[in-house]
Amino acid sequence: MRRQDGFSPVPGMAELEALRSGDRKALAKALTLVESTRPDHRRETERMLELLVGQTGRSLRIGITGIPGAGKSTMIEALGNHVIEMGGRLAVLAVDPSSMISGGAILGDKTRMHTLSKNPSAYIRPSPAGTSPGGVARRTRESILVLEAAGYEVIIVETVGVGQAEAMVSRMTDLFVLMLLPGGGDDLQGIKRGVMELADIVVINKADGDLRQRANLAEADVRHALGFIQPRHSGWEPSVLKTSALDGSGVRELWDAIVRFREQTEQSGAFSANRKRQLDDWIRMEAREMLLEKFDSDDSLQTTHRSLGEAVAAGTISPVTAARRLSDRFLNKDKP
Amino acid sequence: MRRQDGFSPVPGMAELEALRSGDRKALAKALTLVESTRPDHRRETERMLELLVGQTGRSLRIGITGIPGAGKSTMIEALGNHVIEMGGRLAVLAVDPSSMISGGAILGDKTRMHTLSKNPSAYIRPSPAGTSPGGVARRTRESILVLEAAGYEVIIVETVGVGQAEAMVSRMTDLFVLMLLPGGGDDLQGIKRGVMELADIVVINKADGDLRQRANLAEADVRHALGFIQPRHSGWEPSVLKTSALDGSGVRELWDAIVRFREQTEQSGAFSANRKRQLDDWIRMEAREMLLEKFDSDDSLQTTHRSLGEAVAAGTISPVTAARRLSDRFLNKDKP
Repeated sequence: MRRQDGFSPVPGMAELEALRSGDRKALAKALTLVESTRPDHRRETERMLELLVGQTGRSLRIGITGIPGAGKSTMIEALGNHVIEMGGRLAVLAVDPSSMISGGAILGDKTRMHTLSKNPSAYIRPSPAGTSPGGVARRTRESILVLEAAGYEVIIVETVGVGQAEAMVSRMTDLFVLMLLPGGGDDLQGIKRGVMELADIVVINKADGDLRQRANLAEADVRHALGFIQPRHSGWEPSVLKTSALDGSGVRELWDAIVRFREQTEQSGAFSANRKRQLDDWIRMEAREMLLEKFDSDDSLQTTHRSLGEAVAAGTISPVTAARRLSDRFLNKDKP
Repeated sequence: MRRQDGFSPVPGMAELEALRSGDRKALAKALTLVESTRPDHRRETERMLELLVGQTGRSLRIGITGIPGAGKSTMIEALGNHVIEMGGRLAVLAVDPSSMISGGAILGDKTRMHTLSKNPSAYIRPSPAGTSPGGVARRTRESILVLEAAGYEVIIVETVGVGQAEAMVSRMTDLFVLMLLPGGGDDLQGIKRGVMELADIVVINKADGDLRQRANLAEADVRHALGFIQPRHSGWEPSVLKTSALDGSGVRELWDAIVRFREQTEQSGAFSANRKRQLDDWIRMEAREMLLEKFDSDDSLQTTHRSLGEAVAAGTISPVTAARRLSDRFLNKDKP
């Protein structure tokens, strides 16, 4: 895949060195490689991640979700600027569930995060469209590693609160922030069942002006709802905060809550237990994807597949029996 | 799994005979078995489907989709009664995409199809909740076979037009009916991108009373949209119909269009080519599911998985390399 001019899509050792020292071009190249589904690029990604071992795992991984209009971009921008002011570096990844289905819209749009996208201490990566759920999970996890190797201490994974992507994101982040709009009862319905249970911190955004009163009602509702839910991490009771992008209030409190979450769960052991669980989960899910890829790309099965299809069409065997024989053939094909 | 009283969840030969002769109790039992995800039930399902080979494949498989409120249930009821009047037997299966995500609501509700659910020539099977996308596809395909063995000549697979389940249903049915409401332009937006391309017949429902004029506009819009889309089956140009559940108009025309679809695609060879393609697809998808099940239930991998997890946590190897070794171990474990 090397072009005539010597350009290679695969980062070399020098580029990995550049990546580690914060070079944005090298970072972009590495992330593009991770996002590719081409088999040769997958192999190169595997090799690259192996070279980055030992440089990863040291960031705080934060999932943020909320229905469209909840003000996620503005909040991430405010939070990001706060982190940068304190001397940190922050990266934003977007997981777009609609792209998991139909190759739909792209979140994490740089144009929605004006100041952050221009800040050298921040890196915003929009979601590539048209990938499968398994592909999205893989890409996001691997991108987190690459960003960690590039020295980002805070990584935000953003998604919209429509139910599909939230569980996935909560399985690859240290804590999960749910953003809601003011207003009680009905307004909580926009959030899919099950998403509230994933939240470590719930933010009622746009708690300003005329909405201040409704924000208080929403806060009470959420506290009530959380009372019925088992906390996800020992040593941490989900907290509820009110914020306003308009007057900037609550952003600092949100960051403080995030830091407190980290301290308390590190003390209780929940932080590392969660990472360990996520790691085991990742290895298992990735191994499954690899198995399927090997199966899908095994050309030696084509003849078997064809004759099994004919046997089913002729009414000799059922499709399920045919599938059993095909999978057995794949598993045993090199055996005597 | 045999209970003290001799009850077995697995249909015996006598029950399969009863199933074939139209016994509804035997049919319900067979469908319950198909819906089970328990490993021993899966094995029994495989055995049962093998016994039904040769009795299947003779129905017309119709997918029907539309946004909630488009009038799917009423239309299926009217269509079903029409089929039964002509001496046919009809079954309805529901695919509920929300259950694929969160174990949500159940469609194909018998209470929504009053007359049909009481008719001995009809069988309505609601969607079991809480299954994975792969599980839903598997269950639906296998249920179609069981219903065919039970003698149903028309099988309707119903789903809601929100994008996830439609492509799946179109891959297991002979033709696909999309139901829309009157009103042009914006109203078509409720249907996810890509769903229109799956439609062999588009129905503008509720084309009555005040909505008659808007239905004509919608019809023109749909015809325009279809003009840009490549027909899915050679020998068939997607047709557009207006119907009304209120005065019952258009139901007969819809059925006639369905019959015409079958005749024309059988003549062009598209009907059997589509079945063949679907069959090959099914075998491949089912073999993939079987591979994953075998991997997930392989207890001998636990030690390897654990030590690989430790190596990743220690920073010795990357998670992707760990996954590669785990999948290799699974594939090669019986080899020298």
